[in-house]
Order: sequence, then C-alpha cells, then structure tokens
Amino acid sequence: MAHEKFQSCIDACYACATECDHCAVSCLQEQDVKSMARCIKLDMDCAQICRVAASYMARGSEFAQVICRVCAEICEACGEECAKHSMDHCQRCAEACRRCAEECRRMAQMA
Amino acid sequence: MAHEKFQSCIDACYACATECDHCAVSCLQEQDVKSMARCIKLDMDCAQICRVAASYMARGSEFAQVICRVCAEICEACGEECAKHSMDHCQRCAEACRRCAEECRRMAQMA
Amino acid sequence: MAHEKFQSCIDACYACATECDHCAVSCLQEQDVKSMARCIKLDMDCAQICRVAASYMARGSEFAQVICRVCAEICEACGEECAKHSMDHCQRCAEACRRCAEECRRMAQMA
Amino acid sequence: MAHEKFQSCIDACYACATECDHCAVSCLQEQDVKSMARCIKLDMDCAQICRVAASYMARGSEFAQVICRVCAEICEACGEECAKHSMDHCQRCAEACRRCAEECRRMAQMA
Repeated sequence: MAHEKFQSCIDACYACATECDHCAVSCLQEQDVKSMARCIKLDMDCAQICRVAASYMARGSEFAQVICRVCAEICEACGEECAKHSMDHCQRCAEACRRCAEECRRMAQMA
Repeated sequence: MAHEKFQSCIDACYACATECDHCAVSCLQEQDVKSMARCIKLDMDCAQICRVAASYMARGSEFAQVICRVCAEICEACGEECAKHSMDHCQRCAEACRRCAEECRRMAQMA
Repeated sequence: MAHEKFQSCIDACYACATECDHCAVSCLQEQDVKSMARCIKLDMDCAQICRVAASYMARGSEFAQVICRVCAEICEACGEECAKHSMDHCQRCAEACRRCAEECRRMAQMA
Repeated sequence: MAHEKFQSCIDACYACATECDHCAVSCLQEQDVKSMARCIKLDMDCAQICRVAASYMARGSEFAQVICRVCAEICEACGEECAKHSMDHCQRCAEACRRCAEECRRMAQMA
C-alpha cells in the first residue's frame, strides 16, 4: 500500500515541518532577528511544502514523486541556511531538513 | 518548549491526517463509492484541520488551543463516520481520529 | 450552490491570506523587526486558517460555519495587531482582516 | 512589489483551488462516481498545490517560480481529466485549470 511504502518519507516530512514551524517562531525571539530573515522565510516555505508532500504520498498521488523532488530542493536550501546559525532550533531544523531531503530524493527516484 | 510539550498531540494530528488522506482515496476504489461520499468529505476536512492544528502547536501559537478544540470536533465526526464502515482503511482511520480527538481535547483544556 | 453562495466570503478569505503572507515577509524587512514579532506570528496563523476556511466553503463542508467562526476570531486578533503599526503593509493587512472577519461572522451565522 | 506583480497569477491559483474543491465534492454526488475517481484525486492535488503556489508568490518566496512550474504541470493534468467529463462543475474546473496553468507557466518563466 502506497501509504506504507512511503511511511518513512511521510514521517520525515512531518518531522521537518514541525522543526521548521518551531524554528521560524524561535528565530523571531532572537536578539538579532534581522539576520534570521532568510531563515524564517525558508522555514515557512519548507514547512508548507513538507506538509503537502506528506499528504500527496498518503494519497498515493500520481504526482507524489514530482512534489517530493521539489520538496527535497526546498529542504536542502532551508537546511543549508539553518546550518549557518548556531542556535539549537536552527541546528535541529538543519538536521530535520537534511533527513527529509534525503528521504524525498529517494522517494522521487523510486521506480 | 511549546514544541515539546505538544509533541504527542502533534504526532496524533499528523498520524490522523495520514490515515484520513489514505482513507479518502481508498474509499474511491471501493465498489459502492456512493455510500462513502460523506466519509470522503469528512476525511478531506479532517486531514486539512489536523495539519493546521499540528502547525499551530509547533509554532506555539496563541490560538493553538482554539484550533485544537475545533480539530477535536471534526476528528470526532470523521471518526464516527469511518467507524460505520468495515473496511480496514476506515477502521484504522476511525482509530486515528479517536486518538487525535482525545489528544486535542486534552490540549485544548491545558491551563 | 454552496460554492456561489459563499463566494464573497471565499474571496475575502483568500484576499486576507494574501495580505497576511505579504505582511509577514514585509515585517521581516522592517528596521525594528523585534517589535513586529507578534504581527508576523498572527499573520502566519491568519493566512493558514483563511485558506482552510475558503477551502471548506468551496467544498460546502458541514463544518464550514464552525471553521468560519474560528477564522473570524483569528482575523480579528491579527487585524487589531496590524492596525497598531503604521506601515502600508500592516494597514492593508488590517483592512483585509477586518473585511474577512466580517464576512466570516456573517457566514457563521447563516441559517 | 512581488505581491502585486504576481497578483493575476495568485488570483488564478485561488480561483482554480475553489473550482477544484467544488468539483471534487460535486463529483461525489454524480451517479457514476467510480468513473470520477481520477478527477476527484487530481482535484485534491490541484487545489492543494494552487493554494501553496499563491502563498509562495504572496510571500515573494525565492522558490515561487519552482512551485509555479510544478503547479502548472498539475493544473494541466487536472484540466485534461476534467475536460473529459461533460458536467458543468468539470467544465468550469477544466477552464480554471487551463487559465491557472497558463499564468503559472508565465510566472515560472519570468526573468
């Protein structure tokens, strides 16, 4: 069943969405918010596409792989930005983004 | 941290969204789709609000509890409808809805 | 048809989502971002629920009125916060929130 | 301002989402629902990605064009499927999908 074949990617997507949502608002509490602007914006992009990717997979959509490819691309950008910042929420988010990008790449290449 | 305090409710919301997304498309493959129409429509409603509730919690939103209250209400309706149908996808969805409704009620009442 | 009866409320919801999305990122470019934190967070909440409300109405969901009630509440909070800030994006967003709250209240009370 | 440059594409995306949401539930009321299954599934995919695309544009996201490219692809598939069915909701949806695909292609190619 689509649903189960994709489970680890769905989990990675929702875990990434949670870290991104959390990172975005945590960045807003930082002293130097200005320097976090791109991070916050990518967090918003990434959380949103991760939720959509998970949902396409759960529906076994014929476009699940197309969405996962884009999701991987956005996760990579978000993860790279987050990785530049030393705060715990950014580091955790970077890690979740990397894992999600990997799962989505794998999923996008599935035959 | 909001994020962690809410983790079990966030998990229940995303698990419920996945079962609802999966149930909706599985219902479309059933012999008697007509009788599944309300189930499919509630699955769509429920998957969507569950994702939003999870995301409000992850952001520690001041409206997280308000959303969780509504989410619980919709999960209950969806779970009751799903419970009427004997198919595995409906039964699993009913169970996920019940768990999510419970977690959301608990979350909505948190001081 | 549900769809058409709700059209002005659907339009107000999507217009509000657009102003909120735009306001959130515009706030991130302001000199004193710190003072915009609550505005940005409410913009995120509001954009998300407005899109969901519009979508419930377009589907003629049995929960459309329930969602519109919550949407009105969040729009009001977001509009009040935005109204405190003199920037054009905040003032436009405040206005879109007020209109959307009104439409959603009307919709929620429809017999 | 991103927001305004993209307005006609944002409008086309939300209009398409509304027609897709409406078409999905209308298909569920048809006599021969079984033959509408792919239409309903593509309507779900399309409504969801259209809302995301509109939201990326409203935020002036650096990934707005990437999302619009995918959105166009999904709109085309959905529009072609809808076009096969003579019901009014399918024909209106097909038209909204075609318009949205065009706007998104144009947006994706913008320098």
